[in-house]
Amino acid sequence: MRVSRFFMPLLRETPAEAQIVSHRYMLRAGLVRQASAGIYSWLPMGHRVLKKIEQIVREEQDRAGAIELLMPTLQSADLWRESGRYDDYGKEMLRIKDRHERDLLYGPTNEELITDIFRGAVRSYKELPRILYHIQWKFRDEIRPRFGVMRGREFLMKDSYSFDIDAAGARRAYNKMFVAYLRTFARMGLKSVPMKADTGPIGGDLSHEFIVLADTGESQVYCHKDLVDMAVPQNVDFDGDLTALIEQRTSLYAATDEKHDAAAFEKIPEDKRLAARGIEVGHIFYFGTKYSKPLTAKVAGPEGTDVFVEMGSYGIGVSRLVGAIIEASHDEAGIIWPESVAPFRIGLISLKADDPKTKETCEDLYAKLTNAGVEVLYDDTGERAGAKFSMFDLIGLPWQIIVGPRGLATGQIEIKNRKTGERENLSPEAALNKFTSGH
Amino acid sequence: MRVSRFFMPLLRETPAEAQIVSHRYMLRAGLVRQASAGIYSWLPMGHRVLKKIEQIVREEQDRAGAIELLMPTLQSADLWRESGRYDDYGKEMLRIKDRHERDLLYGPTNEELITDIFRGAVRSYKELPRILYHIQWKFRDEIRPRFGVMRGREFLMKDSYSFDIDAAGARRAYNKMFVAYLRTFARMGLKSVPMKADTGPIGGDLSHEFIVLADTGESQVYCHKDLVDMAVPQNVDFDGDLTALIEQRTSLYAATDEKHDAAAFEKIPEDKRLAARGIEVGHIFYFGTKYSKPLTAKVAGPEGTDVFVEMGSYGIGVSRLVGAIIEASHDEAGIIWPESVAPFRIGLISLKADDPKTKETCEDLYAKLTNAGVEVLYDDTGERAGAKFSMFDLIGLPWQIIVGPRGLATGQIEIKNRKTGERENLSPEAALNKFTSGH
Repeated sequence: MRVSRFFMPLLRETPAEAQIVSHRYMLRAGLVRQASAGIYSWLPMGHRVLKKIEQIVREEQDRAGAIELLMPTLQSADLWRESGRYDDYGKEMLRIKDRHERDLLYGPTNEELITDIFRGAVRSYKELPRILYHIQWKFRDEIRPRFGVMRGREFLMKDSYSFDIDAAGARRAYNKMFVAYLRTFARMGLKSVPMKADTGPIGGDLSHEFIVLADTGESQVYCHKDLVDMAVPQNVDFDGDLTALIEQRTSLYAATDEKHDAAAFEKIPEDKRLAARGIEVGHIFYFGTKYSKPLTAKVAGPEGTDVFVEMGSYGIGVSRLVGAIIEASHDEAGIIWPESVAPFRIGLISLKADDPKTKETCEDLYAKLTNAGVEVLYDDTGERAGAKFSMFDLIGLPWQIIVGPRGLATGQIEIKNRKTGERENLSPEAALNKFTSGH
Repeated sequence: MRVSRFFMPLLRETPAEAQIVSHRYMLRAGLVRQASAGIYSWLPMGHRVLKKIEQIVREEQDRAGAIELLMPTLQSADLWRESGRYDDYGKEMLRIKDRHERDLLYGPTNEELITDIFRGAVRSYKELPRILYHIQWKFRDEIRPRFGVMRGREFLMKDSYSFDIDAAGARRAYNKMFVAYLRTFARMGLKSVPMKADTGPIGGDLSHEFIVLADTGESQVYCHKDLVDMAVPQNVDFDGDLTALIEQRTSLYAATDEKHDAAAFEKIPEDKRLAARGIEVGHIFYFGTKYSKPLTAKVAGPEGTDVFVEMGSYGIGVSRLVGAIIEASHDEAGIIWPESVAPFRIGLISLKADDPKTKETCEDLYAKLTNAGVEVLYDDTGERAGAKFSMFDLIGLPWQIIVGPRGLATGQIEIKNRKTGERENLSPEAALNKFTSGH
């Protein structure tokens, strides 16, 4: 993409309303723009990051055997009356009347609707187990939306729902999502810690939040330090027994504020105790028959009698993750995107757009990198070099390729790693090779 | 994907409420399920088709130089008061009050919001032209939703918006989208005819609907027959002059009912006159300064004075296209998906799931095809052969590979083309080669 043709409205000033660094950088780097309180438009740069995160979430769900579908944003109130949650949910639920005065709502979560789909489709235990998921916009009418996309009202969530014939099966589904979540967040460069958590309005007996540690996190959390750097499971057989992987993580103390047990925490050796702030990026629940009973979601069991299905639900805050990643990865100059979610891999900076040799080199690199499938944002504008450097540091692409007449006089261009700041001079051919080998 | 692990709830009975073939097949083949009136859940099979269509739309928008972003589903009523459309829009607009009694609405279209983004970001004609687009769920509160996703209330739309310094530039943008639309629909196996159309609540001076001819179409349309089979532009230079391509199509008569001119139609040679039913799949508008003036979207022009930007908007009904494609491509046994939008390319049918040799051959083919990137739906269940044949004809994958003990006794499996009905016996290796060569 050429900067001269892209749409990336940057802000020079730090917006006064942005209290945390991710919100500031998301506005300054033109990732989002507020449309109304807690509701954001995703500008092209932000949209690209959002799509990358969504795709990682999708791939890891698919790998764990979950099946994607898509439920609508608006739901009928009647379903929520069946489950008894319509009145429970309070003012966070956005209630709507259509032209025929029928009650609709903007889904804050989908336990009822997926249970309705399930009960209309599945008759026998032979069609179990199943994990179904979707990635869809949700709405929660927060009384005081803040922190940009971290606590917005309209937000993108991945929510999965598991259906099993018994509690043991439901536990296996829970474990699959547990491991899938560890992998998902790790692929985005995040260290996430699963912590015992409150079940809130979803309900149930068992629940973990996946927490990314960050000073600006809204939750107070407590855990054993070893959990923070524990290796992420590789080559997982999701059809196999995942119990050991789970126990390795749940045998060490980790809890959010609501579930905190000071006495248990004190038993951790002092140098291993971690009390910190964290950002919730995922939340998983096992709630048994809480929804299948009121909604009558039954299947014929192996003995021929009908059984209420055992369920769990599993959420990831896809849009919130954009903010969480920035909270975890930035410096004073701007964002530092991990390669896996970067809007572009490389920023190609022309130091003198009207110099023929510089232009020719840039155009050649741009064409060859793009043809090789490398995502490049090419700054072909006449802006001065200093402004370009600041801009590329702010938007945080992993690599910068800097091309100018002085370097080209000796056949060299410069490569800068945004994260480490390391710089390297090399020929255009060597640069091309560096970024296209292995592709 | 294995059928034994997939989620594809088929209906045996033709649902009484479905009046047109696409709606019937979408319900029977388990593509969608109604959540409430005019609001659908996309089941896994339907979701796969929807994503393929969305991706083709995206690729052709990108090719034409449009830039993707994503606006929210809910918008502030204040913006619509600025443009004057808040009261005009009538009961089709879903109006919402949040917990603070602020007026929101579920966007039926986005002229106001994109103009707001533009005016907050662009200051100079040097940043023009731009075409911005998004693919997002919309809501129109149809008084009588019907025909399944063809006339639903919550629907997925791609909408683009062009910004230019003058009318000539706006016309170039219009032409780009015109050509991009021809290419987009052709890639889905559809013959679309651009027809002069009413501008309706969007407004403006110039408008074309893109119509797919189908007996069940809701619009009456009139055109010169040569337009139906006119070749689709290939290798288009979207930065070049597209006037000739447009004139070739607009010089022949073509109009929807509202714009029909019987006298002009009569001038077409009789054997070239076509009066038919059609489905609208795209609609493009040039409306000049209709929104930029009330919303004060101005840029500094080349002479230094401020100029209101010239705008157009361009919609494609992404979810509606799923129905339109089925209307255009089906037979009595079911759907016939064009390869480009098929949920899977191949249905792999095991005729005897418990026969070791059959199973081994199927598993081997499934693994090798999947590894080669071919999308296969593998029916590994113990269902009887007749039921499997009917099911695969109904869901309409382009190819079936049929594997059973009788054929394997002579080293053969069978391949069936769903569209032509042609069958071919060949070895598993030859079949593998047929579907993986060129991948």
